Amino acid sequence: MRLSLTALLLTAIAAPTLRTDEGMWTFDNIPSGKLMEKYGWAPDKAWLDHVRMSSLRFPGGSGSFVSKDGLVLTNHHVGHNFIQSVSKDANYVKDGFAAASRDKEIKVPGLKLMMLQDTFNITEEVEKAVPEKKKKKTATRARVAAVGNALSVHTVKTGLICEPVNLYQGGEFWIYAYKVFEDVRLVACPEYQVAAFGKEDDNFTWPRHDLDFSLFRVYENNKPYLPQHYLTWSTAGTKIGSLTFISGHPGSTSRLNTIAQMNYDRDVRYPPVLKRLETASAQLREIARQSQEGERQVSAQLMLTENSLKAITGYHKGLLDVDAMAGVQKAENELRSKVAADPKLKVIAGESWDKIEKTIADLEKLTKDSQYTNLASAPTLFLTLNYIRSLNESARSKDDRMAGYQTDSELEKIKENFLEGPKEDTAKEIAAFTAALTAAQSGLGGSHTFVKTILNGKTPAEAAKHLIEKTKLRDKSLRNSLVKGELKSIASSKDPMVEVAYKLEPYMTDIRRRNDDYNSVIADNAARIAKARFDVYGHDVYPDATFTLRLSYGSVETYPMEGTLAQPYTTFAGLYDRADSWGPEARWGFWSLPQRWIEKRSRLNLSTPYNFITNNDITGGNSGSPIIDQKGELVGLAFDGNIHSLPGTYYFNGKLNRTVGVDSRGILEALDKVMEAGHLVSEILGK
Amino acid sequence: MRLSLTALLLTAIAAPTLRTDEGMWTFDNIPSGKLMEKYGWAPDKAWLDHVRMSSLRFPGGSGSFVSKDGLVLTNHHVGHNFIQSVSKDANYVKDGFAAASRDKEIKVPGLKLMMLQDTFNITEEVEKAVPEKKKKKTATRARVAAVGNALSVHTVKTGLICEPVNLYQGGEFWIYAYKVFEDVRLVACPEYQVAAFGKEDDNFTWPRHDLDFSLFRVYENNKPYLPQHYLTWSTAGTKIGSLTFISGHPGSTSRLNTIAQMNYDRDVRYPPVLKRLETASAQLREIARQSQEGERQVSAQLMLTENSLKAITGYHKGLLDVDAMAGVQKAENELRSKVAADPKLKVIAGESWDKIEKTIADLEKLTKDSQYTNLASAPTLFLTLNYIRSLNESARSKDDRMAGYQTDSELEKIKENFLEGPKEDTAKEIAAFTAALTAAQSGLGGSHTFVKTILNGKTPAEAAKHLIEKTKLRDKSLRNSLVKGELKSIASSKDPMVEVAYKLEPYMTDIRRRNDDYNSVIADNAARIAKARFDVYGHDVYPDATFTLRLSYGSVETYPMEGTLAQPYTTFAGLYDRADSWGPEARWGFWSLPQRWIEKRSRLNLSTPYNFITNNDITGGNSGSPIIDQKGELVGLAFDGNIHSLPGTYYFNGKLNRTVGVDSRGILEALDKVMEAGHLVSEILGK
Repeated sequence: MRLSLTALLLTAIAAPTLRTDEGMWTFDNIPSGKLMEKYGWAPDKAWLDHVRMSSLRFPGGSGSFVSKDGLVLTNHHVGHNFIQSVSKDANYVKDGFAAASRDKEIKVPGLKLMMLQDTFNITEEVEKAVPEKKKKKTATRARVAAVGNALSVHTVKTGLICEPVNLYQGGEFWIYAYKVFEDVRLVACPEYQVAAFGKEDDNFTWPRHDLDFSLFRVYENNKPYLPQHYLTWSTAGTKIGSLTFISGHPGSTSRLNTIAQMNYDRDVRYPPVLKRLETASAQLREIARQSQEGERQVSAQLMLTENSLKAITGYHKGLLDVDAMAGVQKAENELRSKVAADPKLKVIAGESWDKIEKTIADLEKLTKDSQYTNLASAPTLFLTLNYIRSLNESARSKDDRMAGYQTDSELEKIKENFLEGPKEDTAKEIAAFTAALTAAQSGLGGSHTFVKTILNGKTPAEAAKHLIEKTKLRDKSLRNSLVKGELKSIASSKDPMVEVAYKLEPYMTDIRRRNDDYNSVIADNAARIAKARFDVYGHDVYPDATFTLRLSYGSVETYPMEGTLAQPYTTFAGLYDRADSWGPEARWGFWSLPQRWIEKRSRLNLSTPYNFITNNDITGGNSGSPIIDQKGELVGLAFDGNIHSLPGTYYFNGKLNRTVGVDSRGILEALDKVMEAGHLVSEILGK
Repeated sequence: MRLSLTALLLTAIAAPTLRTDEGMWTFDNIPSGKLMEKYGWAPDKAWLDHVRMSSLRFPGGSGSFVSKDGLVLTNHHVGHNFIQSVSKDANYVKDGFAAASRDKEIKVPGLKLMMLQDTFNITEEVEKAVPEKKKKKTATRARVAAVGNALSVHTVKTGLICEPVNLYQGGEFWIYAYKVFEDVRLVACPEYQVAAFGKEDDNFTWPRHDLDFSLFRVYENNKPYLPQHYLTWSTAGTKIGSLTFISGHPGSTSRLNTIAQMNYDRDVRYPPVLKRLETASAQLREIARQSQEGERQVSAQLMLTENSLKAITGYHKGLLDVDAMAGVQKAENELRSKVAADPKLKVIAGESWDKIEKTIADLEKLTKDSQYTNLASAPTLFLTLNYIRSLNESARSKDDRMAGYQTDSELEKIKENFLEGPKEDTAKEIAAFTAALTAAQSGLGGSHTFVKTILNGKTPAEAAKHLIEKTKLRDKSLRNSLVKGELKSIASSKDPMVEVAYKLEPYMTDIRRRNDDYNSVIADNAARIAKARFDVYGHDVYPDATFTLRLSYGSVETYPMEGTLAQPYTTFAGLYDRADSWGPEARWGFWSLPQRWIEKRSRLNLSTPYNFITNNDITGGNSGSPIIDQKGELVGLAFDGNIHSLPGTYYFNGKLNRTVGVDSRGILEALDKVMEAGHLVSEILGK
């Protein structure tokens, strides 16, 4: 892990002034110019094809082929649920697993992996299918039909699983054709305790010490699948400044949102969520504090709550970062002036930013109503009201119906749900409904339509008890007769819940319709802006993430941290350092090590690189992505970002945003010295 | 290093709501109530006497006796210059040192250590010496005289070295009596590379991996001194949550300053300093970047520059921290309302905050003049002008003279300096004067008295050359005749430099006098506020640091860092982890290890606690202080604070401010396994 002084100076001094390594690029549009300019090298088609066809999509994550016999590498946290699902006879999550031979590899039911075999740009044919000057809805339908048509054509032509892909928010339409692997078997994984060392506390942080990998194998016809392409596993690894690529499936970003949309997230969307999570976290911590039993009961929920709290706090902080947001504002201003200066673009999107801002202001006024009139905690009322709404909507022309009530099958499904009736336990429903009504009464006031109609002079507890205990909707006969008699019998029903639902429906539907209308205006104008942006910048920019295959480039690079520079690597010595520092009991054992990791410590070469950071631009969904060097070899495995990666939802901060990966050398050392899987090391190294 | 769950929960959850462990307390005023409340334990008089008499003051730092044979422990960076000074035959700074036997211990010329043997509160006799209703200057003189008298009395009575100590900005006067040790010998120190591992980058940060200790021994009559008190060295050390005390000599803090004074530092004092340091740092980095030779030449200066830059940036950030400063403002408001509500205090300090604020505004207006008219780069002009000023000042009554011109000896010294004449190389003086005049011309404008008088129509380069080349002041005869002829001959002199000095003196003296006056108003009102604060809070608060012995209390405690919790300890494994991560060449070898540390790695128990953090409140001057447990045993050695300790100059942030120490166990392990000093381990452990 030596580094030349030249590389170091580049890192420490020159880098900040160079263009940052931003972007999740589609494989058809790799920014070769930028790469050549900064690194003097860019991948050619053979390299790209090789990497693309070595890359795999997992449910919610990414992976890659890493041996000629179809061995697949991904994160432990991507494989976690599948490992859990095959842990019938033993606890592979807790104790880890390594199949001693191929016949011991365990088939994972339901796990399918996808390899992007081919892509087809259908933008031209889609746009041709849309007649000029068509009404918006007709244009949308024509576009949807053209995409559907292309999907059928390519499915038949390729014999592969095809998916439509919309890039640049409508700027480009593609068909992505995947080869799908349906026989996937678990080969090896370390203990959860080592894979997720530091648990929620260390999540989204650096320095890190996580062996976050798992190995699977693809089978075809009950034999190991021999992939056309797989990544050679590097034993040389990287050093500071090494060029790194990450090939994977970033899930979603909102970088092309307008400032008004981001401000909405900052001021309206996140604050109540954060408040709720903070309250929940404090309550759970108090329960945990009071007894060991309480701690045991709430610990999983506490982790989940604090994970969300950390992530959303990170997004929110990103939006509160005045300097960073000034950069976003500058980019928006630049595009706006280019649009204003171009007569054609001005027609398309000239007013769109203002329209979005105005519509968001309208949406904000509805926030309180939407928040307090959510019927998730009142299933009986919801089923009834929703059925009434479906009857009303069915009377409208299809074009005028709300989303979710447009097709016959949608309407039929709603009727079926109503006929099946409520399934919730009565006592639980009363408790939840009481809580919701109490909140609504205090949040909206006693004279609000929603509150007045439901309470009807009673207290929240009385009203909830009355409605849920007195209604006959749990009797199949009432539901059948209401369906039979349709609106007429509903209107004349004396059942208290049906009466309330019937009275409330116009208000509830109005709120819903206005929400839908506002969001539709925002979406339409966002698409207009996207179109204009694509017109102006074309392929100089990358599309927002869509959980489709992307390539990001960057290098192993430090960043300023707590007054010093973040170390670019950790080693196994760092793992033991942090475990010893905290001891096995701190924070519910977050930094404790399994027994065999304590026993086999002296077998490990503690200087082996373990985790490392790069400035590649990735996001959720990239978990399990291979980190690849210029030679196309696997040098690491992306599993997280540092705390400064969280604002990456909105913008890329090249100075601080870092990808965190497991080093290819560390995985081999662990397989060999601790996991008793020397045969897998041999396979990986092609021996 | 295991920790009980109870201790952990206290750390992680309960602590933030408890009172923080703030304060650098004098040994006569330990906050036993606060200690009992939070930790259920407080030291008694025997404990305090033992710790006090085991504690030592080093030049600029602290230390302690750690063996019955007078072994003394301090930081490597406190001992650094002394180690350097005795490195004649070998490079003990680079290679480390361990005397194999006592006759190999090396006497350090000039190093004196001081132990606080006794203290005497003389507040009452000082206040009695000040007659009621005396004029301010007379009162000050009376106070100074009374302190001087007490100093003589106690020096004679104790036979010790006595120093006057002013606490609470005039609230209390004390005589501190020290036993001074003048024969101090170097016993052992590690390599600088390990003592200061991470160098300037890791300075003021955490996690840390520095073996920042050195051992000396006190001798008397050429024999090891047997101290009455020394600290037993703990082999048990601390764990998370352990109560820790630090006994040492914090240098200076400004926590009792008013908000107006802090705002002055924030807006006027620091920004130009930071700008200058940033420019210097960038220039030095550019030189270092261009060649290896350049890098070698500037590296020491670059370190120094960046160290200052980091420290002052830390102070400045502390002042820019809106939340923290709101706390400071709140405390000021509280005191102000208490003063306003008390007729007696209102007379003393009721107007002092406003007066300070107004005076600072006046001072700000002078900033530019003071900055650009500094004559440091023009020694010939300065010597002459200063002599002229001394003649003018001597004509005033003593009470009216400026500081520095009041006594006969002061005036005589100025005359002597003038008679000795300028010593600077002419070419260098011309260059420096040209640069200063160029800056002044651009900063003050061409019509400013200072600029116009000196330039007299010439360019800065011409004027500097003209004045310095044409003056005859380098001839002794001119200087003698000017001294002989006094103001009359000066006024009529045709020497160009003398002419300029004579013309400029009234303006320069006016600037100086106004500066002095403003600062005197500020000091007077600060003392008034201090008096009022002491009246209100008395011994519930601690005095600002004065490089006298203080005790702070706290515990081993984590803090939130980069999205996770800072690990409370590092181990030797962490040292090797960081060294391996960066490699030996990164950043001028900041994280490289000496050869024997690489060779002897396997001999070390890598799990040994190495560095750790506590929430004790310390500051510069505390370097080398022992960290002590309840039993009065030495568990660590304070050597730094984290990045959040820097605002500690102005306020204590209990949530983030942490002391960084070397663990007592780590020092023993290093002495034994790497430094070949098992005999010192035996001595330390009393074997």
